[in-house]
Amino acid sequence: MDLRNGFDISRYIRSIPDYPKKGIIFRDITTLLANPHGLRAAVDELVWPFLKTDIDYVIGIEARGFILGGAVAHELGKGFVPIRKKGKLPWKVIGRDYELEYGVDRIEVHADAIGEGDRVLLVDDLIATGGTADAAIELIRESGAELIAAAFVIDLPDLGGAQKLREKGVKVHTLVEFEGE
Amino acid sequence: MDLRNGFDISRYIRSIPDYPKKGIIFRDITTLLANPHGLRAAVDELVWPFLKTDIDYVIGIEARGFILGGAVAHELGKGFVPIRKKGKLPWKVIGRDYELEYGVDRIEVHADAIGEGDRVLLVDDLIATGGTADAAIELIRESGAELIAAAFVIDLPDLGGAQKLREKGVKVHTLVEFEGE
Repeated sequence: MDLRNGFDISRYIRSIPDYPKKGIIFRDITTLLANPHGLRAAVDELVWPFLKTDIDYVIGIEARGFILGGAVAHELGKGFVPIRKKGKLPWKVIGRDYELEYGVDRIEVHADAIGEGDRVLLVDDLIATGGTADAAIELIRESGAELIAAAFVIDLPDLGGAQKLREKGVKVHTLVEFEGE
Repeated sequence: MDLRNGFDISRYIRSIPDYPKKGIIFRDITTLLANPHGLRAAVDELVWPFLKTDIDYVIGIEARGFILGGAVAHELGKGFVPIRKKGKLPWKVIGRDYELEYGVDRIEVHADAIGEGDRVLLVDDLIATGGTADAAIELIRESGAELIAAAFVIDLPDLGGAQKLREKGVKVHTLVEFEGE
């Protein structure tokens, strides 16, 4: 339980059994975001380790990462850069494939959005196996930008994603953990 | 040209000719959002008419509406509620079909997210023909909530969406206009 700011974020995350399939408990942050104190607490706790860090851009991953990423960029007074699913960005992009349980997906960022000398903070709602986050980090590094840290509201440590990122030298910041998935 | 706050938002929107198809000029807000002064100016101008208005929730439409919606909710100190594409929300939903150029799409909101007595502000990046915004407004009204206003960064007035919403009694707030599409 995390009571920084006196607000217990984990209590406001809704657990939905057997979604999207039997045996999986889905952690739904919409109930956290809909609460004004919840949104504020999530943004405050995502940014506090970085308040004195030099950051140029906050990067969010489509789609839930856009909600928190937009709010975090606004709170820090920085620009926001979206990483989107394949074919959604209108300008020249660089992209990276990543594996899903069945098949392959692709994320992209505008080729001129970040580059050499830029210091970026990656924000998303949740880290599970870390497939999407890992692809996002590879994209950021390919662009020449420096990844300062990756920040997530929820960590599912049993799925190993946060650990995998740390082993690649990424500073990972998470707010709440749920076990057993 | 709008120079409130001394920042000309329109200059930071990238115009991409012949995207997504020949003859269309796509207005790309990623260049605005990536600029820290641009993101700040867009959020400030979206919220200023509502600073003294009683609002419970900011609602954003997937996916670009999440970036500004999250930042606007955070700025106003309110909760954020997402309207998502069909099948993306994990809990019980209400939904609404809307017509595309070819075919039909559907947006959904959690059935317990907003209801009777809630006062909501809808935020999206752009209003063109208004098909998605109109469906979102129907959803909000179906939920029993009260729509205070709909706020967009970009209006394409030649496509008539903002006018259509105003004729339905919606207060529409837009920041910049582009003509000729």
